[in-house]
Amino acid sequence: MNSVGIDAVAIHAGKLKLDLVETFAPAMDEAPEKYTKGLGLHASSFPDVDEDIVTMGANAAHRLMDRKGLEPDDIGRIDVATESAFDNSKPVSTYIAGCLEQVYEGDFHHANKGERKFACISGTQSLDDAYNWIRAGRHRGRAALVIATDTALYARGDAGEATQGAGAVAMLVTEDPNLVELSPEQGFGSADETDFLKPNQQFPSVDGKRSVQVYLARMREALEDYESVAEPTHPDQFRYIPFHTPFPGMVRKAAMLGYRHMIRDSSIEDDLASEIGRQPRIEEFDDEEQFMDAVRDYMDDLKETEAYRGWYEGAIEPTLDIARHVGNWYTGSVHVARASALKRALEDDIDMTNEKLLVGSYGSGAQAEIHTETVREGWTEEIGALDIDDQLAARYDISYEEYEQVHDVHNHDKETDFEAFTTPESEFVLSGRGPMDERVYEYVE
Amino acid sequence: MNSVGIDAVAIHAGKLKLDLVETFAPAMDEAPEKYTKGLGLHASSFPDVDEDIVTMGANAAHRLMDRKGLEPDDIGRIDVATESAFDNSKPVSTYIAGCLEQVYEGDFHHANKGERKFACISGTQSLDDAYNWIRAGRHRGRAALVIATDTALYARGDAGEATQGAGAVAMLVTEDPNLVELSPEQGFGSADETDFLKPNQQFPSVDGKRSVQVYLARMREALEDYESVAEPTHPDQFRYIPFHTPFPGMVRKAAMLGYRHMIRDSSIEDDLASEIGRQPRIEEFDDEEQFMDAVRDYMDDLKETEAYRGWYEGAIEPTLDIARHVGNWYTGSVHVARASALKRALEDDIDMTNEKLLVGSYGSGAQAEIHTETVREGWTEEIGALDIDDQLAARYDISYEEYEQVHDVHNHDKETDFEAFTTPESEFVLSGRGPMDERVYEYVE
Repeated sequence: MNSVGIDAVAIHAGKLKLDLVETFAPAMDEAPEKYTKGLGLHASSFPDVDEDIVTMGANAAHRLMDRKGLEPDDIGRIDVATESAFDNSKPVSTYIAGCLEQVYEGDFHHANKGERKFACISGTQSLDDAYNWIRAGRHRGRAALVIATDTALYARGDAGEATQGAGAVAMLVTEDPNLVELSPEQGFGSADETDFLKPNQQFPSVDGKRSVQVYLARMREALEDYESVAEPTHPDQFRYIPFHTPFPGMVRKAAMLGYRHMIRDSSIEDDLASEIGRQPRIEEFDDEEQFMDAVRDYMDDLKETEAYRGWYEGAIEPTLDIARHVGNWYTGSVHVARASALKRALEDDIDMTNEKLLVGSYGSGAQAEIHTETVREGWTEEIGALDIDDQLAARYDISYEEYEQVHDVHNHDKETDFEAFTTPESEFVLSGRGPMDERVYEYVE
Repeated sequence: MNSVGIDAVAIHAGKLKLDLVETFAPAMDEAPEKYTKGLGLHASSFPDVDEDIVTMGANAAHRLMDRKGLEPDDIGRIDVATESAFDNSKPVSTYIAGCLEQVYEGDFHHANKGERKFACISGTQSLDDAYNWIRAGRHRGRAALVIATDTALYARGDAGEATQGAGAVAMLVTEDPNLVELSPEQGFGSADETDFLKPNQQFPSVDGKRSVQVYLARMREALEDYESVAEPTHPDQFRYIPFHTPFPGMVRKAAMLGYRHMIRDSSIEDDLASEIGRQPRIEEFDDEEQFMDAVRDYMDDLKETEAYRGWYEGAIEPTLDIARHVGNWYTGSVHVARASALKRALEDDIDMTNEKLLVGSYGSGAQAEIHTETVREGWTEEIGALDIDDQLAARYDISYEEYEQVHDVHNHDKETDFEAFTTPESEFVLSGRGPMDERVYEYVE
């Protein structure tokens, strides 16, 4: 069989912007560096009053289908990944299909529609489902539409408030894809963890410290599992490494973990030994505390080396370009990171064809997944068609008071009656509620 | 590649029984026939105070793994299907893995855990995911554990109250399975429907009349879609036809629809013509109303024929044996129907090896899926190992007052403090809440 992977991608950012430097930091009475340096974030995207996970997903999917000249009959499944669902039974994919059927002549009546939930990792799990469906030969020549859509809100005053964000990533999964081919090999690191929960609640309860530890522990396991079925990883193999990005500061830690793992017993570690010594090995220490102290010292030294800095600037930093200006999109986040890196490559005129990506997905609760991707020849066309810069520039910049209103609008427990800040054009909007309290959508020309 | 399908199955019924004839009907001041004849139900199963979707799923999975002599390393994925989730981020599969890790030496750290939601159809969608994963060659020789678990509660006083139920079905999906092989061909009928919703609420809002129409319309579409990729269906092809069973009365309607469809232009229709005429064709009528009247007349006649009655008694009735005594289990329901039919076959000493099943899954919102299954030689061993009769006989029979308490216990919006009615033995129970309000489970020897 031909290769299987992502043929095309479209991104829809929430149409409002909360500026963390100009708006949020002053209101919080904090130095902007707390956000720009500490978290690595400058702004968050928010859905306007007439946007939600359905409109963002449908608008991304519509853009994708239009650009690729697709009709509903070309789509054999619509998989939605979200942790922001507003119904405990009916999946978001049915609403999105209903939106798209308003603007296409055909329908999706023979497409399998689904919804997955597992914190931020279900976008990648849905990509997997689509990949497996094609590899299993059940797709009848059709493509899968995979949509990761979330409105990542925290309770007001929560430590996570500065990391919020909202948007959708739509991906077309096909045989012989234009953008990236996925590896059949994948590695999982997964455990029953209590780091981030939403027990019958919209906004998360987070154990921040634990959450960071769990991210790193599961990612390490996934990398080891991947290597057990593929081959040892090495920094030189991968042009970019998109990680799940709750905020860029978290990726700094994940990147350090990944680099330490990949260079262990490699010529890079040997070359660095004269400068900073070799990595501490646990068997050389009497207790774990001493070992951990030594690891911390090694990491402090490592991150100042030219080798590490060059690698980080080249392989990691470009994955964060978009995240810095939109915040956390939960399920879409790692897919934004991939797009971000490839967009930078296009801008920097780097030839990515046949280059490899190591993709590190993660969801709290908790599970990490590692797979690799091979960039395909059509990548320049696909990435060149992204209009995310235009979208971000066109966002309505909300004041702090407006932010407070917008947060209430998207709070399931509050009833509000605010007007939208932006005027919809050629897009789906939430237009009201039907007799069974169902959300009703319409396409605005 | 070898065939792929369900190797083994285990069922866990909620440990409490609400008798619709002796307890519910008198309290409602209704004749018992409203439930036994109208709905086709005699009793519902409910979770005890220390049971929930996690314990029911974990207990079913534990029974399955123990019986098959499996260790965690043998499992490559744990897929949970539910529309009764109690967390908007962390999936039930992580809790179930956490339970199982209490009783096994190994762990599931390299198993992919997921959760799907689409009303009652996500159990079958999860089965599909597992099938595709194996067919895609990504399973490393491991099996998938697919668990459909739900507590199907309606608001007190709702018309659906008599159809409630709770339980879990755990299925082991493997290459060269012992129980049934799944067809690669599948048909879908799917549309954006507002028939059954849970908008930010635990209990459903249902448009009962619409819900029945949508079930039938989507099932017809799925059957046509299946035939477009497989072959025309005929009643003689399928020994049993397990349908999604919200209540047996609904299956009566679905069976009639399926039979009419399958006999059209067949020798069965020809043979029946002298007795009841041929099926009305829409092109013979001036308007749809006349056509629908004629269809209703034909169905009234058809269901009295010996041919239809014989077929219904043989192919449909046995699928309902368990449902009549446990009510609706949502995602698990169609999988209970399959087990029910095969259990009857074993009891009646019918040789099922190589016989075919037509399986009709459905979820409101709405989507139907049709695929076929071929029964494998090991079926007698697998079905003979089911202990569902013992479980049902051992249930604690609750009074109406106790039913009211139990409903409150499982209502997410109520705080209650009742003792369990049954004494746990060799099973997982919900033992309390942790510091982040997470549910905590333990194994009771």
